[in-house]
Amino acid sequence: MFRFELVAVDTKTSARAGLIYTDHGVIETPVFMPVGTQGTVKAVEQRELIEIGARIILGNTYHLYLRPGIDIIYKAGGLHKFISWDRGILTDSGGFQIFSLAQFRKISKDGVKFQSHIDGSYHFFTPESVVEIQRILGSDIMMCLDECTPYPCDYDYAFKSNQLTIEWAKRAREKFDNTEPLYGHSQAIFGIVQGSIYPEIRAKSVEELLKLEFDGYAIGGLAVGEPVEIMYQITEFTASLLPQNKPRYLMGVGTPENILESISRGIDMFDCVIPTRNGRNATLYTRNGKFSIKNAIYKEDFTPVDPECDCYTCRNFTKAYLRHLFNADEILALQLASIHNLAFYIWLVGEARKHIVQGDFLEWKDIMLQRMGEKAKIEK
Amino acid sequence: MFRFELVAVDTKTSARAGLIYTDHGVIETPVFMPVGTQGTVKAVEQRELIEIGARIILGNTYHLYLRPGIDIIYKAGGLHKFISWDRGILTDSGGFQIFSLAQFRKISKDGVKFQSHIDGSYHFFTPESVVEIQRILGSDIMMCLDECTPYPCDYDYAFKSNQLTIEWAKRAREKFDNTEPLYGHSQAIFGIVQGSIYPEIRAKSVEELLKLEFDGYAIGGLAVGEPVEIMYQITEFTASLLPQNKPRYLMGVGTPENILESISRGIDMFDCVIPTRNGRNATLYTRNGKFSIKNAIYKEDFTPVDPECDCYTCRNFTKAYLRHLFNADEILALQLASIHNLAFYIWLVGEARKHIVQGDFLEWKDIMLQRMGEKAKIEK
Repeated sequence: MFRFELVAVDTKTSARAGLIYTDHGVIETPVFMPVGTQGTVKAVEQRELIEIGARIILGNTYHLYLRPGIDIIYKAGGLHKFISWDRGILTDSGGFQIFSLAQFRKISKDGVKFQSHIDGSYHFFTPESVVEIQRILGSDIMMCLDECTPYPCDYDYAFKSNQLTIEWAKRAREKFDNTEPLYGHSQAIFGIVQGSIYPEIRAKSVEELLKLEFDGYAIGGLAVGEPVEIMYQITEFTASLLPQNKPRYLMGVGTPENILESISRGIDMFDCVIPTRNGRNATLYTRNGKFSIKNAIYKEDFTPVDPECDCYTCRNFTKAYLRHLFNADEILALQLASIHNLAFYIWLVGEARKHIVQGDFLEWKDIMLQRMGEKAKIEK
Repeated sequence: MFRFELVAVDTKTSARAGLIYTDHGVIETPVFMPVGTQGTVKAVEQRELIEIGARIILGNTYHLYLRPGIDIIYKAGGLHKFISWDRGILTDSGGFQIFSLAQFRKISKDGVKFQSHIDGSYHFFTPESVVEIQRILGSDIMMCLDECTPYPCDYDYAFKSNQLTIEWAKRAREKFDNTEPLYGHSQAIFGIVQGSIYPEIRAKSVEELLKLEFDGYAIGGLAVGEPVEIMYQITEFTASLLPQNKPRYLMGVGTPENILESISRGIDMFDCVIPTRNGRNATLYTRNGKFSIKNAIYKEDFTPVDPECDCYTCRNFTKAYLRHLFNADEILALQLASIHNLAFYIWLVGEARKHIVQGDFLEWKDIMLQRMGEKAKIEK
């Protein structure tokens, strides 16, 4: 059964170390969840996710509902079996994708009508149907359907949108309570705090969601283009209103720096396409900052991407080889870069956890930010 | 040091089982060599090549000379170190690529001038320079520069072209004898029999090459568009002229059927892009024939690609999942298909060897061809 256990709280920051218990294993928090939108983390094999220590990955309701379709996933015995992954899965509700990907969408009180980005077909999602779909997916953690406001977003729109998201959260909660898991393992449901950059609306959102007693709370509607300082402020403010005994998930964040700063503001869970997407674009993240491996200075650099990293890429290959693979448009470039970047992200949050437990998180964070930042400047 | 040992010769066919000793390990023949043109077998990690039992892979002189360039590979300590692969490497001379890829080429007695397909720059390869490049690459087996005749090719052109290839082979042999390996491991050199579809020219080619006492003999200029029966006839005829105590390599061949038929005609070594290239195009090869995983009949097929295969793909994933990955344009599709197809090819030649040693190769081959053929018809 789903359960969150708080292991340590930092004294100088709001950073927390915890444990999320699921029927697919225990997840140490802070946790970084690799994004496996369509039932695969791009260019990375499931056994490689295990190798780098991924305990939970994301799947996306919008994408998987459209393709391959929930009938196939149901017949496969759920998403875990379909993709051959027996650790944790969190499924996003698809709200964000409807707003960012669909060719057409029309929101009503009842739900949202949208046109598939794949074939133009029309579909209608309701808070209830999205819970039902996630029952069929069988994710360990499902998310409520929400409206993710864009940035900038005026106060009135953010206010009304949040009212709708709250209404939808109530209906999702009710549907969740009136349905059962399909595959013998338990499922949890998280509410999503919206409210754009307006503290009053965020507070209202938290207040209403808390009444619904979700298993965890996500902060949505950030990392959508707002200045990073505003993102940190809203994250800090929102996290401060959330209960200590439930996990907190900052959706879609972010860079290594964003993640450390958000951990220090009380966030437990992260997902982001940066390590894989930017990896596929030849950007590598390391303890000494990020750099583009395509840069000519790596032409004859026969050292690993990150000498302190113990991932497959860093244990076996040099920057010169990886640069060659990118220049030659080889698929192995995408694989090795994705493995390394994810390994680094997972190492980073694991290390953060260690220092939260040890009690020197703030000192460590400052050193890490300095290390990552300085080299970034040098190597850009 | 390079050495070939004949282990068994089939009594009913010309099939042979052998061992090639190199400083990077012993290679059981018949052997299938995955193609790693640019220093990587496309979409497959080096550790995965080891996992599926690859003992030797190909690299390409033309490609590696152009990119990353031999200076970088030299500074890396040779191709093995550059790509982190300590098993066998055979490098093709680049002759075939100059004729198939270069934007422009002009052959003279001295060598061949060509224009890079990457940046249009001009280069000149001679039989000597190609040996020198392969010294720098440090491949376990290097190939002489040859002219690969197209199909169709008239007798006169084939005759003259072969005279040139023989001249070049002499010069390559001399250069090889007057140079030393650079990295402490020994290198061998193979001659390439040309002569298009003309037995007399093939015989002349063999006669002249044998005088040069190469470490092995390749049959080039086949699988370039001629009818498969002609390919088999020329292969059989040419192989029959080659000495028993040297390995025989049929370049660029082929389908599983082509490989079994060529083994029975006395061929020991194969390379081909079919398992990886066709794999990336969703064609899967199995004990029961080939099929396109994109076919709608696999939509809800939750069985492995090949239930008798023990590769990572077949052990863990279903046809339905692989089909989804291809439909969703996911990189993992390319990875899993390539792993499986290579594992199947390597299994196939390993099984052929077992039956040659056992003495029932012909019976086994007929059963395999029937199995692979029948299903192919059903599933096409």
